[in-house]
Amino acid sequence: MPSSSKPPKPTPQEARLAELEIRNRFAEQGIGGPAHGAGRLSARERIAHLLDEGTFVEMGKLVTHRAVEFGMQEMRVPGDGCITGYGKVQGRVAFVFAQDASVFGGTLSEANAAKIVATMDRAISVGAPIIGLYDSHGIRIEDGVSALAGMQQVLLSGAKARGVVPQLAVLLGPATEGTLLAASIADFIVTRKNVTESVSNVAHLLAADDEACLRAVRELLSFLPSSYRDVSPMSAYVGQDANVPEIEDEPYDMAEVIAKIVDTDSLLQVQEHHARNLIVGFARMEGRAVGIVANQPLCLEGALDGDAAAKGARFVRLCNAFNIPILTFED
Amino acid sequence: MPSSSKPPKPTPQEARLAELEIRNRFAEQGIGGPAHGAGRLSARERIAHLLDEGTFVEMGKLVTHRAVEFGMQEMRVPGDGCITGYGKVQGRVAFVFAQDASVFGGTLSEANAAKIVATMDRAISVGAPIIGLYDSHGIRIEDGVSALAGMQQVLLSGAKARGVVPQLAVLLGPATEGTLLAASIADFIVTRKNVTESVSNVAHLLAADDEACLRAVRELLSFLPSSYRDVSPMSAYVGQDANVPEIEDEPYDMAEVIAKIVDTDSLLQVQEHHARNLIVGFARMEGRAVGIVANQPLCLEGALDGDAAAKGARFVRLCNAFNIPILTFED
Amino acid sequence: MPSSSKPPKPTPQEARLAELEIRNRFAEQGIGGPAHGAGRLSARERIAHLLDEGTFVEMGKLVTHRAVEFGMQEMRVPGDGCITGYGKVQGRVAFVFAQDASVFGGTLSEANAAKIVATMDRAISVGAPIIGLYDSHGIRIEDGVSALAGMQQVLLSGAKARGVVPQLAVLLGPATEGTLLAASIADFIVTRKNVTESVSNVAHLLAADDEACLRAVRELLSFLPSSYRDVSPMSAYVGQDANVPEIEDEPYDMAEVIAKIVDTDSLLQVQEHHARNLIVGFARMEGRAVGIVANQPLCLEGALDGDAAAKGARFVRLCNAFNIPILTFED
Amino acid sequence: MPSSSKPPKPTPQEARLAELEIRNRFAEQGIGGPAHGAGRLSARERIAHLLDEGTFVEMGKLVTHRAVEFGMQEMRVPGDGCITGYGKVQGRVAFVFAQDASVFGGTLSEANAAKIVATMDRAISVGAPIIGLYDSHGIRIEDGVSALAGMQQVLLSGAKARGVVPQLAVLLGPATEGTLLAASIADFIVTRKNVTESVSNVAHLLAADDEACLRAVRELLSFLPSSYRDVSPMSAYVGQDANVPEIEDEPYDMAEVIAKIVDTDSLLQVQEHHARNLIVGFARMEGRAVGIVANQPLCLEGALDGDAAAKGARFVRLCNAFNIPILTFED
Amino acid sequence: MPSSSKPPKPTPQEARLAELEIRNRFAEQGIGGPAHGAGRLSARERIAHLLDEGTFVEMGKLVTHRAVEFGMQEMRVPGDGCITGYGKVQGRVAFVFAQDASVFGGTLSEANAAKIVATMDRAISVGAPIIGLYDSHGIRIEDGVSALAGMQQVLLSGAKARGVVPQLAVLLGPATEGTLLAASIADFIVTRKNVTESVSNVAHLLAADDEACLRAVRELLSFLPSSYRDVSPMSAYVGQDANVPEIEDEPYDMAEVIAKIVDTDSLLQVQEHHARNLIVGFARMEGRAVGIVANQPLCLEGALDGDAAAKGARFVRLCNAFNIPILTFED
Amino acid sequence: MPSSSKPPKPTPQEARLAELEIRNRFAEQGIGGPAHGAGRLSARERIAHLLDEGTFVEMGKLVTHRAVEFGMQEMRVPGDGCITGYGKVQGRVAFVFAQDASVFGGTLSEANAAKIVATMDRAISVGAPIIGLYDSHGIRIEDGVSALAGMQQVLLSGAKARGVVPQLAVLLGPATEGTLLAASIADFIVTRKNVTESVSNVAHLLAADDEACLRAVRELLSFLPSSYRDVSPMSAYVGQDANVPEIEDEPYDMAEVIAKIVDTDSLLQVQEHHARNLIVGFARMEGRAVGIVANQPLCLEGALDGDAAAKGARFVRLCNAFNIPILTFED
Repeated sequence: MPSSSKPPKPTPQEARLAELEIRNRFAEQGIGGPAHGAGRLSARERIAHLLDEGTFVEMGKLVTHRAVEFGMQEMRVPGDGCITGYGKVQGRVAFVFAQDASVFGGTLSEANAAKIVATMDRAISVGAPIIGLYDSHGIRIEDGVSALAGMQQVLLSGAKARGVVPQLAVLLGPATEGTLLAASIADFIVTRKNVTESVSNVAHLLAADDEACLRAVRELLSFLPSSYRDVSPMSAYVGQDANVPEIEDEPYDMAEVIAKIVDTDSLLQVQEHHARNLIVGFARMEGRAVGIVANQPLCLEGALDGDAAAKGARFVRLCNAFNIPILTFED
Repeated sequence: MPSSSKPPKPTPQEARLAELEIRNRFAEQGIGGPAHGAGRLSARERIAHLLDEGTFVEMGKLVTHRAVEFGMQEMRVPGDGCITGYGKVQGRVAFVFAQDASVFGGTLSEANAAKIVATMDRAISVGAPIIGLYDSHGIRIEDGVSALAGMQQVLLSGAKARGVVPQLAVLLGPATEGTLLAASIADFIVTRKNVTESVSNVAHLLAADDEACLRAVRELLSFLPSSYRDVSPMSAYVGQDANVPEIEDEPYDMAEVIAKIVDTDSLLQVQEHHARNLIVGFARMEGRAVGIVANQPLCLEGALDGDAAAKGARFVRLCNAFNIPILTFED
Repeated sequence: MPSSSKPPKPTPQEARLAELEIRNRFAEQGIGGPAHGAGRLSARERIAHLLDEGTFVEMGKLVTHRAVEFGMQEMRVPGDGCITGYGKVQGRVAFVFAQDASVFGGTLSEANAAKIVATMDRAISVGAPIIGLYDSHGIRIEDGVSALAGMQQVLLSGAKARGVVPQLAVLLGPATEGTLLAASIADFIVTRKNVTESVSNVAHLLAADDEACLRAVRELLSFLPSSYRDVSPMSAYVGQDANVPEIEDEPYDMAEVIAKIVDTDSLLQVQEHHARNLIVGFARMEGRAVGIVANQPLCLEGALDGDAAAKGARFVRLCNAFNIPILTFED
Repeated sequence: MPSSSKPPKPTPQEARLAELEIRNRFAEQGIGGPAHGAGRLSARERIAHLLDEGTFVEMGKLVTHRAVEFGMQEMRVPGDGCITGYGKVQGRVAFVFAQDASVFGGTLSEANAAKIVATMDRAISVGAPIIGLYDSHGIRIEDGVSALAGMQQVLLSGAKARGVVPQLAVLLGPATEGTLLAASIADFIVTRKNVTESVSNVAHLLAADDEACLRAVRELLSFLPSSYRDVSPMSAYVGQDANVPEIEDEPYDMAEVIAKIVDTDSLLQVQEHHARNLIVGFARMEGRAVGIVANQPLCLEGALDGDAAAKGARFVRLCNAFNIPILTFED
Repeated sequence: MPSSSKPPKPTPQEARLAELEIRNRFAEQGIGGPAHGAGRLSARERIAHLLDEGTFVEMGKLVTHRAVEFGMQEMRVPGDGCITGYGKVQGRVAFVFAQDASVFGGTLSEANAAKIVATMDRAISVGAPIIGLYDSHGIRIEDGVSALAGMQQVLLSGAKARGVVPQLAVLLGPATEGTLLAASIADFIVTRKNVTESVSNVAHLLAADDEACLRAVRELLSFLPSSYRDVSPMSAYVGQDANVPEIEDEPYDMAEVIAKIVDTDSLLQVQEHHARNLIVGFARMEGRAVGIVANQPLCLEGALDGDAAAKGARFVRLCNAFNIPILTFED
Repeated sequence: MPSSSKPPKPTPQEARLAELEIRNRFAEQGIGGPAHGAGRLSARERIAHLLDEGTFVEMGKLVTHRAVEFGMQEMRVPGDGCITGYGKVQGRVAFVFAQDASVFGGTLSEANAAKIVATMDRAISVGAPIIGLYDSHGIRIEDGVSALAGMQQVLLSGAKARGVVPQLAVLLGPATEGTLLAASIADFIVTRKNVTESVSNVAHLLAADDEACLRAVRELLSFLPSSYRDVSPMSAYVGQDANVPEIEDEPYDMAEVIAKIVDTDSLLQVQEHHARNLIVGFARMEGRAVGIVANQPLCLEGALDGDAAAKGARFVRLCNAFNIPILTFED
């Protein structure tokens, strides 16, 4: 481009490319805008932390209203408060959608529900996990029946996906009734610590902040196959922990017994803080993923009540759906 | 039974029958207890008004916790705030569930969600309409994931029923987010007048009080086949209205033109107060049910906007699903 | 209406009603216009002859382009050369579509293909026979890919209907490749006599003229259940033919033997003029419909060749699909 | 026929008709031949007792090997030891197959398995009960893989029918492993008294002889809808039993309590002699069919064990599948 | 093999092997015989050009009439004018069928329709593209109903494959109504230039001759995943075109703008010569396949009409079905 | 661990780990206990011989009755006479179940049927072969209806798997009616030589002892794809047999002709000893798997009878289901 004392008038094409870049940048900021608090990331930053570097393929970006003329009802407004696409986690394909609280409070509209549904449906057909990053003030109720219908579609797609591909929900914003309803379709709910009790009852993993939540998702995925048509990936065997201190007291901590038996540092408890009399989670045995179900003598003397039974049943169903062998421990 | 001066000790069997009657009566009152306001009926009274007299067959009454041992998870507590069953409307079978606000505020629990789902699934298999009488403060959120899962099941069954059997929701209590989500799966929402604007946008028919709402449901059903496997019932031809006053002014009222053409008093507008520039509804032509779609010159000069288009599209889809011919009028 | 010496200016409403009537009349003539030759009826007259009097309910009449705004893609232009709907034949529901050669030569367009598909799909869901009255110069090829796609949809719906509801095609116009392709999806093809050999190979019944063809359809339907979910209707038993002259010559005519055994005048041969060494058809035994399969000694000494085997196999499959018992005769 | 001193030579046609009659008679005797013991009926007699008089329509009779040329693999040999068809029970359509022990010991071959499968599949599509009259020495093992495949098909069709139409098996011959496997797919097994314990554990009703077994089937059917798409038929209300003697002893007989409450003589216990601590069965309340589940204080003090729980769960599933309301009684 | 002055009589086995080779060679020539014109290849040569070298596995070759005794109805005659099988394109499996105009004019018979259907069904189950090389004079109409039924099956399998695996049709012979009907089921139609307008309206890519058509198919496949269960393959990033001349005129050519933005030489327009006011096609962005939708200011000032909308909608549906992100450009 | 003159009391944790190891060892011995005869292996040894070394992942081991509280009905007792899981054969995943005759005679109970069904269902969803090692005295009949229902489920899962994944049954114990019924659902039955004629009619491969049977399974799998969604693996081309002695006599042995044509030592006949007039089997051509169908002049002069036709038809269906090209040879 020729340098000159006063800037030359751009050619029409230059103007267009510039505009394109501006809209592009706007879309990247407008959705998933600047971070909004300590330990909090923007929607786009969250996706970057979640996926292997440089692997994100965005679906439905820069798609505009005009497109409705081609029947593209599903992808109308630029972003519209929700980023969708796919990428890789530890080398395997995963689909993701991320609500952006900076656009209309991340509320669920007919349009962004359609983007979420399209993402879920693609994940189902490809056979890859769905990761939903929720950060929304609920259903955009002022849109009336169309937003409600959008929510119904999200729930339906979630139900279709159940037992077909792993679904993980990360709750990074308010826990409204509608958001809870959508997130609880997932196999796992990960959220930040210090949530209300009703949320913690529903959550499977609690982590310190956004980044920790997203790391937890990556760790969870390492135990899971991409779909019911696969078996879990094999990890390199890292040995067992030879150096565990002896435990002499009664009642002893079953989690420590398990940690001695499975591969070093491989135990990941699920719903650790709910129904503590039953331990469920994942671990590795010589590099292979196993599900763990064990009663915990430390709590209620390890006796099972209704909550523990429900916790266990749900976990066993999940392992069965995804071909994960189960190892049980009883006192 | 021997008469005597002082009442004889009842035999063990008498005692048992008496207890059975008491529990029976309790169930009938406990669920669908006393009316709770002017123009308001109890759940059981609502069912009585809705159905042809003496035709109600209740499913899942008096079924108790113990029954869980037979795998009857779906029907645990006596009533549990929801009455379900089937009966007849104008001689044709219809399924019904009625939430009872007098029990735990009619909140949706895992147990009563299961009863609703069972009712919906039976209606689908039999091929008969589903009528839901909603009167609830929403999801029983303190039950955690199980109540949320119950709600998801209700929405799934509703989605399965869509286009298979007519679904009618009668909103007789608070319009919480959860209740709206469930009700809006129905083909028609009937509610009392004087509701908030967001509800009236969603509702198809507004009526003065409980009884009027239930009469409206009966009238709506008279136009609809039992399922997509049927055609609408034929009514006796009552003639056309010969005596309509002439209308000379411009713009004229399209509803009056339609009323002249269809069978006397047969026009039933749907969503009359929403997107008034488009009239949709049912009527009869020589006794046969037809769907009506017409623009209304009185409003926006009959021009169609997004709301009218959505209103029309939804109605046309419904008519197509249930084999109802459509008659259109244009100015 | 006030009489006066000079005609009064009509009120706006009168004008509108008059216009409506004109358009109505136009639709009834424009599609299914005047009869077009000796022994030939208009599309609308054909439907009248086919169905029980006064039972026709038309679907998609008077529906116009504007309607596309409500998503009514399936029923765009007034008639567009094809009348669709349902009515009754001998008291049982049947669906019908009739191409009208007087509109664009009855050619199959995207729009009228959609009407045919909607009719077939409704017939499948209701569980009632489909009767197609073909009178077309083929696919409206100048519409390009959309007309081809329409044709594909018609064939798909026909395939879905196979074995679910009886399908009868009446060939009343030219036998183009496209029309033959569509008609041959049907279980029975009825056409006028004096057709080309290739058509007569495909046809199941030949009749003198339009009226006779439509009577033949009614007779065929009397043997068939409404769908695979039904059994054939019972007829009153009219006795057997006691007065058949004796047959002494060899080889004798198997058709006469059958006529002696079944109810008087109940035998209806199918594909009588194709593969004459095998007789297939329907008859009644004490009022019940039966399928007949018999070799015919008069032809090839009753030996079976490939054509006869194919004719027999197709007929047996049909009887099995519709729960009709088969009676076989062998020499 | 002219009388004369010496019989005239029959015409060819007379000869043929005579042969046809002979083969017909042979088929009727050869399959379902003479009764084979006290209280035992032939296969054809059993069907006659089971169905309303004169309503049987036989499928696949007189069909011969030759027919294989039309692809009629499913119905090759005349009868081949199994009669199949449909008729009515109390005015409603029911499908039936009856093994005939007088032909090859009633063994299950590829051919008669195909007839049974066709019957079951028709019953499923029509939506009518399947009644199997078993009288067989098992799988015709000398036919090798084809008879085994036939058996697999019977089991598959039975599984498809489960929960779709009621299935009733009547065990009237030996209880071989194969026959038990097929019969136990049914919802109800009815057999003659004085069977081995392993059979009585599996049976739902025991009756004195063939006729009583078939009457029991008719009674059972009176409580059941034709399929999951129906509700049970209504009977005329015959009043309650006013005259029941009082019961004072403890523990009392719950069956007598139930008998007092339900319509007179309407209680039909199912699996009465198995897990007696739980009563399950059918009855009528004001003419409507209900399922009964009650613990029996007379036995184990009414406490439930594994057998009773399984008995109850199976019965409840059945009632739910066929839309029958359940009435429970507890001590 | 013994050498001798006069040729020895071949052993029986030698004779047999020789015959086998002759029949083999005949099959390879008889179907896919010598090339039939300038720029035209034989069926077998076309397959060789289409697939990676040496990867073709033929299905159904040398299969003979006799085989019908094993139920091999689908593959009766040697070749019968159609070669089918699978191989690889750029290392990924693809299924192919090629009509051979040198055998009965390549007409579609029951037998070769069955081979095509088997090929399509295998492609669907394996999840790999279907490439049809059409060179036929249409349906073998003299075979009557069986050839028509064959055609229907081809259309049905094509419909089943839609949205499941990419379908590409290459039109290398006459464009009869039947051939057009079959080919237009495909997602893409590639044909030689200089075709009639009606064909060019239907075609997506035009190429100079047979070889160019087959190269175009390979290029198209490089953008597409093997099935809806995959994502498109990644290509090495070749950089962007730094050297595009500036465009100053108005209206400018949108295709040139796009070419500047996407990877060098990666833009492949689809339906370039139809509805030129809308550009659709594929390109790569940093090695990833994207769909392009853009209006073209050069034509109708880029305004969209019905044809452009249909073109766009069809393309967007395709991209959505196969998980290809879409990039839109507007002026 | 401190050494001392008298053994120290173990810590509670040591005791627990020791117990765990004991139970583990018990499970490994109790199921798949010591070998039970010459040439016979234990269940666990069989699996070790079948799979690639160290690849077995056991499902449902060490799972105990208590687990029923989590809804793990499918996997109740430790082993219960049946080992299930998955591993690899020549690097590809395969699922396996092995009955253990040392536990209750290997009889099929509700519990181990559920383990088998779970294994089959996982194999279907993953798309990998199922290998059943049968060694059982039949259905555990004393469990009544529950064991019968278990058997029905095994048969249903087998039917679901048919044509989806290859199923191989290895008959290593008694051939009871029930075991034959289950095994004959498989595509291939492999068993030891010297079996009864009825078993050899059903078997596809006979081998000298347990090890040879398991090697045969591995060889068979080398020709088969993992599922209908795959094509067979390619092997390295080992050349053709250049050194076959000439055959001059008539009739010659077709197997020797085939051996000359296919890759060296690649021919594996199936059902070699049944219907010897038809040869079916697998071989390789330049490393690719092909199915072979050939008549054998040595037997019945190669004429085909019913048994040969059935043998051929079954084999052709299998090849078609799994995308294996067929090569036919005729004399």
